[in-house]
Amino acid sequence: MDLATAVGLLCGLVVVVTLIFLGGDLRMFYDVHALIVIFGGVLAATLVRFTFSGILHGLPLGIKFAFSMRSSHPRELIDELTQIAEVVRKNGPMALENIQVDDSFLGQGIRYVADGYDREFIKDTMERDRDIFLHHLEEGQKIYRAMGDCAPAWGMVGTLIGMIQMFANMSDPSKLGPLMAIALLATLYGALVANLVCLPIADKLHGKLEEENVSRSLVIDGILLIRDSKSPSLVKEMLIAYLPEHHRAEFEEAAA
Amino acid sequence: MDLATAVGLLCGLVVVVTLIFLGGDLRMFYDVHALIVIFGGVLAATLVRFTFSGILHGLPLGIKFAFSMRSSHPRELIDELTQIAEVVRKNGPMALENIQVDDSFLGQGIRYVADGYDREFIKDTMERDRDIFLHHLEEGQKIYRAMGDCAPAWGMVGTLIGMIQMFANMSDPSKLGPLMAIALLATLYGALVANLVCLPIADKLHGKLEEENVSRSLVIDGILLIRDSKSPSLVKEMLIAYLPEHHRAEFEEAAA
Amino acid sequence: MDLATAVGLLCGLVVVVTLIFLGGDLRMFYDVHALIVIFGGVLAATLVRFTFSGILHGLPLGIKFAFSMRSSHPRELIDELTQIAEVVRKNGPMALENIQVDDSFLGQGIRYVADGYDREFIKDTMERDRDIFLHHLEEGQKIYRAMGDCAPAWGMVGTLIGMIQMFANMSDPSKLGPLMAIALLATLYGALVANLVCLPIADKLHGKLEEENVSRSLVIDGILLIRDSKSPSLVKEMLIAYLPEHHRAEFEEAAA
Amino acid sequence: MDLATAVGLLCGLVVVVTLIFLGGDLRMFYDVHALIVIFGGVLAATLVRFTFSGILHGLPLGIKFAFSMRSSHPRELIDELTQIAEVVRKNGPMALENIQVDDSFLGQGIRYVADGYDREFIKDTMERDRDIFLHHLEEGQKIYRAMGDCAPAWGMVGTLIGMIQMFANMSDPSKLGPLMAIALLATLYGALVANLVCLPIADKLHGKLEEENVSRSLVIDGILLIRDSKSPSLVKEMLIAYLPEHHRAEFEEAAA
Amino acid sequence: MDLATAVGLLCGLVVVVTLIFLGGDLRMFYDVHALIVIFGGVLAATLVRFTFSGILHGLPLGIKFAFSMRSSHPRELIDELTQIAEVVRKNGPMALENIQVDDSFLGQGIRYVADGYDREFIKDTMERDRDIFLHHLEEGQKIYRAMGDCAPAWGMVGTLIGMIQMFANMSDPSKLGPLMAIALLATLYGALVANLVCLPIADKLHGKLEEENVSRSLVIDGILLIRDSKSPSLVKEMLIAYLPEHHRAEFEEAAA
Repeated sequence: MDLATAVGLLCGLVVVVTLIFLGGDLRMFYDVHALIVIFGGVLAATLVRFTFSGILHGLPLGIKFAFSMRSSHPRELIDELTQIAEVVRKNGPMALENIQVDDSFLGQGIRYVADGYDREFIKDTMERDRDIFLHHLEEGQKIYRAMGDCAPAWGMVGTLIGMIQMFANMSDPSKLGPLMAIALLATLYGALVANLVCLPIADKLHGKLEEENVSRSLVIDGILLIRDSKSPSLVKEMLIAYLPEHHRAEFEEAAA
Repeated sequence: MDLATAVGLLCGLVVVVTLIFLGGDLRMFYDVHALIVIFGGVLAATLVRFTFSGILHGLPLGIKFAFSMRSSHPRELIDELTQIAEVVRKNGPMALENIQVDDSFLGQGIRYVADGYDREFIKDTMERDRDIFLHHLEEGQKIYRAMGDCAPAWGMVGTLIGMIQMFANMSDPSKLGPLMAIALLATLYGALVANLVCLPIADKLHGKLEEENVSRSLVIDGILLIRDSKSPSLVKEMLIAYLPEHHRAEFEEAAA
Repeated sequence: MDLATAVGLLCGLVVVVTLIFLGGDLRMFYDVHALIVIFGGVLAATLVRFTFSGILHGLPLGIKFAFSMRSSHPRELIDELTQIAEVVRKNGPMALENIQVDDSFLGQGIRYVADGYDREFIKDTMERDRDIFLHHLEEGQKIYRAMGDCAPAWGMVGTLIGMIQMFANMSDPSKLGPLMAIALLATLYGALVANLVCLPIADKLHGKLEEENVSRSLVIDGILLIRDSKSPSLVKEMLIAYLPEHHRAEFEEAAA
Repeated sequence: MDLATAVGLLCGLVVVVTLIFLGGDLRMFYDVHALIVIFGGVLAATLVRFTFSGILHGLPLGIKFAFSMRSSHPRELIDELTQIAEVVRKNGPMALENIQVDDSFLGQGIRYVADGYDREFIKDTMERDRDIFLHHLEEGQKIYRAMGDCAPAWGMVGTLIGMIQMFANMSDPSKLGPLMAIALLATLYGALVANLVCLPIADKLHGKLEEENVSRSLVIDGILLIRDSKSPSLVKEMLIAYLPEHHRAEFEEAAA
Repeated sequence: MDLATAVGLLCGLVVVVTLIFLGGDLRMFYDVHALIVIFGGVLAATLVRFTFSGILHGLPLGIKFAFSMRSSHPRELIDELTQIAEVVRKNGPMALENIQVDDSFLGQGIRYVADGYDREFIKDTMERDRDIFLHHLEEGQKIYRAMGDCAPAWGMVGTLIGMIQMFANMSDPSKLGPLMAIALLATLYGALVANLVCLPIADKLHGKLEEENVSRSLVIDGILLIRDSKSPSLVKEMLIAYLPEHHRAEFEEAAA
């Protein structure tokens, strides 16, 4: 689990609730108008911007990946793949059936090799799965960013509607303050939705996307090398060469 | 029909109207000054920015495509093209005359093959049609984006004019509130035109543009392969190879 | 004449004047302070940004091209060039002396061919003229964009100066309103100069620049082909191949 | 030590404190609410945006490098490497054990050569160390930029919360001023955190990153040339050729 | 001298001073707090952003080049270089000692040829000088742009500090106006520093940088051709070919 996301969101919530309690009363900061305009407005603009299918895939996948951490880093994947190559070399592909791995994508590849599928089928199927997955993750990232970009604008729409009603009913000045407070709530909600939730989650998904792309491509290449019964040392060497600069550095850092 | 666009716009309208009714009176939010400055101003700036011909083609095409959905996805097009290749192989090009397809661009290509036009003519005519179509769609996207970008500025112009008149006539403070409310309406209209309508539609058109480019290029290639009497399996293989990564993934996802 | 530019500017003027008359008095919206700060400030920043020579060439050229339309589209130029190639083929270069064309750049090229100048001279002279022209047009585009970018900032400067004087003289509250109104006028002027005039004109010039580049390059290539006594059908074929995708589409659309 | 960073931060502090004392009382500018919202909010958003590991490495490394200066410029490194090549040529690799250098990365390379490691090992180990280092420095730069980008937004959140509480309790107008002052403090804190600390530090780290990349790559190449017992003049010539344009210029400027 | 820069700055000053005198009193617009926050704050952020060495070279070089004009345009340099090639051809390199040129960089090159230095030395020395010079000019451009980008933020910091002090001392409403006026002065200073001085100068330096790059590279190439005793017509031809499109056009425009 990616604790930083959960701790960050919790921390932001604590900050806001603390501030509110220090200054008064929590109920003062709840307003159904502001909730409607932020959540309704952002939902409306997101529907116009994307397709139903994109939203249904991207939104839950984004949340899931913002909170989860890969079970295996590229360096651990290379270690696992090297060990599997060792096993296949010693005991043949049949021995793969007893191997347990954390990474489900790697597990799928191992099953294909154990079942004796041909190279072309494994390559096509696994690349297709990786591409579908990355496509949905990228769609998720775009949706969170679009929501984060338009939330402040809808906050302003809510505040404008509140202020117009306030000015139009200005005969009773004693109500002016509370009405103004309610009007400002929409701007506050919009700023929090954008700056605490949507934009940081979009940035985190951007990082996960790159990580998954490297890890899954690495798994595919490793499985194909194992399928072709390459020696463990060759598997390791070729996979390290495959890694981009920084990832190679990290791998060797861990190995050191 | 692309329901998400319609549902999104409806949802935005419901949000705004609900907020207004909760706080008072719908008429309070209608002001002819604000309507003039937003629609007149955005129209004026759009006319200076583009040519008459670009606006006349792009504006209606944009609306049409924001609300419509392709009848056939790339994967369905490949299936249809493979079936047509099968038919041509069995019964010759004459058999094409009885084939009915949903996609009008595909239908046009089929007619050309059935009528026995030569390769060069079919390629030139269909590529020309695709390019004209994409050009107008892109022009439409640019126009909606430009309108979305300048609507808030015209909202501010309307609010400034209203506030200047208000301050200049400040002798009667009782009118201050309603005048201020009217001045703020222009900003509200500008924010809604930009954030609910124009910018989301421009974003949706951007997606449609890419989709149409892939689909129509794929139809052209498929028709040319059929014209050359290639075997159905070759047609399928070459068209899948033609698809960009993500689209290939989707195709195979559906096939799985 | 590019009517859209003129109609757009007129339309913007009508919108603003209508709004002002609906709310009161036109004189209320004239203020010499605001005029000085917008036009003086924008002029000052433009002088620091560019050179005298760039401003003297770019500013009038920009206005001229924002309001004018090419007499001949690329497709018409190709038709004209094909006809001229036909004439040269039948009657020799001498016959060119009687040909009248709308496009002055094309006319210049025809004269060179009629006068029997050599290939190298015609190519160098016409490319030089095209480059000087495009350079000045681009400079014009940049100047209008820079003016549009800084006009709102100078509007804010004017409003700040007005508000500082207002607050400093706040002993007489009855003058507060009119002084505030005058202060806001600078912001209004800045918003109008940027969003109605400068930025839309810069965008239009950007389009004209691309159009002129295509048309003039096409004329140069056509003239050189005619100079080399190529056949009309070859001239047409090579010039169409020269056109970028979209322009080729438009040409063939017109031909269809 | 990079004095400019320290002097700049001190100078900014002096400016702000001077302004505050000129206008009154330092305590007026301390508010625990504003501190909580800025530091808590920025921390929260940063946690959601990055991973724990990235923050733990990047934040302290960034501070360290913003305040420190390379002991050796590229030109000095080339001089040192040339001298070392001279020593190795005269006295063999053993003589390297007595050489003292300021740059720890260079020192590490010298030890490898003195200890007689093979070319491949030295290249891999040093490139890995450089890449890990640059990766952490870049992560640091991104974190400071993200913090600088979201600090003003959290300042606005704090001000909105303060203003909402103020308007809701508006029955006692005498408290309005001090409450408003406290509300504005959050915006002030956000602006200072962004414009004095985070964004300038991110910009400085960007420059250090490029400098370290050049210097460390140069050290690696020089060490490898020395390992291969190249002549001092060849080492110098090849390292100068390696430098990018501007760095070459600086080197020769110093040499002149 | 680049008169446009001087006239522009003067014009901006006249606009601001005129506005101030029309509305009252110049002293009202002088405030030591605002001066401290703008100049101190911008200085502080610039120190954190850049190194001492970069600031010391870039700042004065930027001012010098914003106000100065090249003595010779590319086309004049080509004419001069052609004449020099003519002289060398007729009278040998010795004759160069009597030649006087305006451009000091060209003069330096002529001396090298007259003194009989070898090709490699001349090329290296002159390219090194050009690169050092362009590096400092680019650093200057970046510094002016960074100052222009942060000046408005520091204006806001000054205004916030002023407003917080004002609200905290709100017991005496009669002082409210003058205190508000002073608070707004910092925003005004920041807007003027950014929009009249720093950003336009950065834009002008950007143009000068390109111009110097072309001119100095052209001088180096010309000097090397003369050093190799190429014929004047070859020198001219090769230098014109060297010019980028637009510069070639300008050269030939002048020649026409």
